[in-house]
Amino acid sequence: MAPHSIRIWGLEGIPEVQPGDNLCRIICTALERSRSSRRDLGSKLNGPEPTPDQHAKLVLPRTVFVVAQKIISKAEGRIVQLESVQPSVQAKDWAAQYHKDARMVEVVLREARRIVRMDRGILIAETHHGFICANAGVDASNAPKGAVVLLPEDPDRSAMRLRLELEETLGAPIGVIISDTFGRPWRQGLTNIALGLAGLSPFIDYRGQLDFVGRALQATVLAVADELSAAAELVMGKTLGIPVALVEGVQYSTVEGRGRDLIRPADEDLFR
Amino acid sequence: MAPHSIRIWGLEGIPEVQPGDNLCRIICTALERSRSSRRDLGSKLNGPEPTPDQHAKLVLPRTVFVVAQKIISKAEGRIVQLESVQPSVQAKDWAAQYHKDARMVEVVLREARRIVRMDRGILIAETHHGFICANAGVDASNAPKGAVVLLPEDPDRSAMRLRLELEETLGAPIGVIISDTFGRPWRQGLTNIALGLAGLSPFIDYRGQLDFVGRALQATVLAVADELSAAAELVMGKTLGIPVALVEGVQYSTVEGRGRDLIRPADEDLFR
Repeated sequence: MAPHSIRIWGLEGIPEVQPGDNLCRIICTALERSRSSRRDLGSKLNGPEPTPDQHAKLVLPRTVFVVAQKIISKAEGRIVQLESVQPSVQAKDWAAQYHKDARMVEVVLREARRIVRMDRGILIAETHHGFICANAGVDASNAPKGAVVLLPEDPDRSAMRLRLELEETLGAPIGVIISDTFGRPWRQGLTNIALGLAGLSPFIDYRGQLDFVGRALQATVLAVADELSAAAELVMGKTLGIPVALVEGVQYSTVEGRGRDLIRPADEDLFR
Repeated sequence: MAPHSIRIWGLEGIPEVQPGDNLCRIICTALERSRSSRRDLGSKLNGPEPTPDQHAKLVLPRTVFVVAQKIISKAEGRIVQLESVQPSVQAKDWAAQYHKDARMVEVVLREARRIVRMDRGILIAETHHGFICANAGVDASNAPKGAVVLLPEDPDRSAMRLRLELEETLGAPIGVIISDTFGRPWRQGLTNIALGLAGLSPFIDYRGQLDFVGRALQATVLAVADELSAAAELVMGKTLGIPVALVEGVQYSTVEGRGRDLIRPADEDLFR
């Protein structure tokens, strides 16, 4: 029996995404182009250019598409030109204190429903979705000149839309995770986590299952969507311009879940 | 050009580990057995049983071995028989309040240098190493009957020892990560993180590098060892009895680091 293995690969050839772009079409075009360079699929697909019904052969069933939040946000037009922003007094004060752009601070405050920490030039905020992250997810990296990019308004809805389009085009059941790079308490360094998802459960639940010696397992609910996001980051890279990774062979639950289920309610949070 | 891809596979056939076991030998024996079932290496290795110098063909150079903490601890004898434990008054009080085993609570308190939270039957502690986790890492799952398993005393040292032995046996440079399953603040569900490591840096550092539009990147230090641990968990599974996963093809920095570098000093932690 072959050992349980998964393969993760970065999808190359995704162009700079613009507001209004059709991400499904962009991803499928990149998939077709990558076809000839993929060793394992190559042998099956040699021959003339694929017809639409050959799309299904472009991916294995139950492939998980991990998509960087940045291109989802760009396609959805979640871009703010800083020159259009009038900073509040609070934003100006804080920006002056830490030599920040007051317009950037203003955008962060608008995206936040709560400021967790504002210290030493770092702004940790809870977004309107409930995510705790630096700058409420507002990011100038890889943004158009003079602009910043916001998180998608509803990452689960964005994931569902892309999933349905990809499934229709590719003719195979797939999962979609929209992922972003977050810091975290207690641990140094950033990791990718899942903001939104569709087609899979964010969790694998081992409750009630037994360990090797027949005792009920203790550590029991695994955040598989966050683990998939972290795994995908390994091939996406920050400077490679690879905003989409495909994970093949992973065993996940298809019980529908939402990325927002990964947010721990504050009153249940004993880890802080 | 082939797309950047990584492969992660679970190493089957690791027996129940006992105190004093040689993990390098156990892993290499399992690698030899898995040889015939591995499609990609199979074609290269068909033929008679391998001689020692063929060990090198068992792994690709720069493979990362992600090893579950549990088998490291067992091999190192980090096992406590509960019948040998005399619980303190504090342990008895807390155990009575939450219907816990006072001896288990006692072991947790001994492994902790600080109790972060003791509430609703959950004990979050800072271990002597500095890890923040449930029960100070003390775990009864997959432990011998009547016993609990502690974290390794020095996971970085354990990783270095295993790395040197594996490199000598396999004749290839590799990385080792000792991984455990932790809860975390803000987010539901558990993920695997790196306790100790050898042969790789725990981080990929993008500081000073530029994004697509030539601007310095903001989110810049990625905790690649935690991402590798999370990725490996996807094939290890809690009930599969697969305590070792191999990650092939990942690009990592070989600047030596330590797992303890992943612990964020409390006075720099703005995320809580």
